[in-house]
Amino acid sequence: MRFDIITVLPSLLESPFAHSILQRAQKKGIAEIHVHNLREYAHNKQKSVDDYPYGGGSGMVMQIEPFASCIEKLQSEREYDEIIYMTPDGVTLNQEIANDLSTKGNIIILCGHYKGIDQRIRDVFVTKEISVGDYVLSGGELPAAIVVDAIVRLIPGVLSDETSALSDSFQDGLLDAPIYTRPAEWRGHKVPAILLSGHEAKIAEWRDEQQLLRTKERRPDLLKD
Amino acid sequence: MRFDIITVLPSLLESPFAHSILQRAQKKGIAEIHVHNLREYAHNKQKSVDDYPYGGGSGMVMQIEPFASCIEKLQSEREYDEIIYMTPDGVTLNQEIANDLSTKGNIIILCGHYKGIDQRIRDVFVTKEISVGDYVLSGGELPAAIVVDAIVRLIPGVLSDETSALSDSFQDGLLDAPIYTRPAEWRGHKVPAILLSGHEAKIAEWRDEQQLLRTKERRPDLLKD
Repeated sequence: MRFDIITVLPSLLESPFAHSILQRAQKKGIAEIHVHNLREYAHNKQKSVDDYPYGGGSGMVMQIEPFASCIEKLQSEREYDEIIYMTPDGVTLNQEIANDLSTKGNIIILCGHYKGIDQRIRDVFVTKEISVGDYVLSGGELPAAIVVDAIVRLIPGVLSDETSALSDSFQDGLLDAPIYTRPAEWRGHKVPAILLSGHEAKIAEWRDEQQLLRTKERRPDLLKD
Repeated sequence: MRFDIITVLPSLLESPFAHSILQRAQKKGIAEIHVHNLREYAHNKQKSVDDYPYGGGSGMVMQIEPFASCIEKLQSEREYDEIIYMTPDGVTLNQEIANDLSTKGNIIILCGHYKGIDQRIRDVFVTKEISVGDYVLSGGELPAAIVVDAIVRLIPGVLSDETSALSDSFQDGLLDAPIYTRPAEWRGHKVPAILLSGHEAKIAEWRDEQQLLRTKERRPDLLKD
């Protein structure tokens, strides 16, 4: 799987893509992540990629041409399954969307910055608009890293323990049960006795109960569907 | 405002905190961001901070002691308003929570990794559990960066244009209107004529309509409240 990320702040994404699962996936050749500096596609000497909004108002708007040049250069090299724009008014990312995207081949991700991108980039190029949640951030870079992380860990061969991703929160529509490790007692706080019992079936039953309980308590909305 | 972030991957957070608004806020002395390496608080020679889950199952669990040592060291130096654990089963971050947190003084953020942290850390230390959305990630580092970014940009003096944050999506409960910049026509795609009219009142009216329209179309759930 290949990601091409277009941003005005390529260096912001350096450390997130150089660690942990994203690093491992790239080393194994399972995922390629390419970060493109939008300024290299600026059409003017000042390398500026933004301009004032038509109709006035605060904040700068990212121009069409640099994005168009970069996207069209990439498209001349290979086909893309999706061109995703990270934006707070997009469809909210969830595990189902991540699962679906993890089956794709090549994806371009556009990171907005400043006030956002010219609407015509969205109209002409973008195939999917994704939000990571109902909050405003400085730019689309961290959201892009979130999307890549959520997707890449689902590609077979990336996680060392295949069953781990399947037992994560949301994969079965429920939140995780509480987890514990050594010591069995810490300043009087004990691990639930059932987990020390060695009784596999009862432990599984307890975990199912806890998952349901926690989901009911914290996220009853997940049980409605 | 001060953030102390506790993680096994401190270097993953280097570039996100060294750019854009987070860099500016730190340079201006408005926000301090300290990243602590959990391994330095490991109680064993191998500097390991995780262990197998009680009751079996896949994935490793982060142990109590290293977190306890790091948190208690920080607490001995100053008071904290919140100790936040980033976890998919926490309360989903939204703009209201970000607004609220931006009024706090000192915040500790715990980044989970592997399968998560021992439940007793949550029971004993954590005051708030926050999720950035309904999807699973490799660790709590990117979510911590998201929370810090969402908060810091709201602190007065951080954004150069004070009105910009207020007109962002979600601050008035609606999505943003489409935005455009030069050129007025690109490959036949024109900017809406109203935005070129210079008629301020009509432009404001058009934007209000567009905000409502886009919110109805994309996020009718936001209009229900």
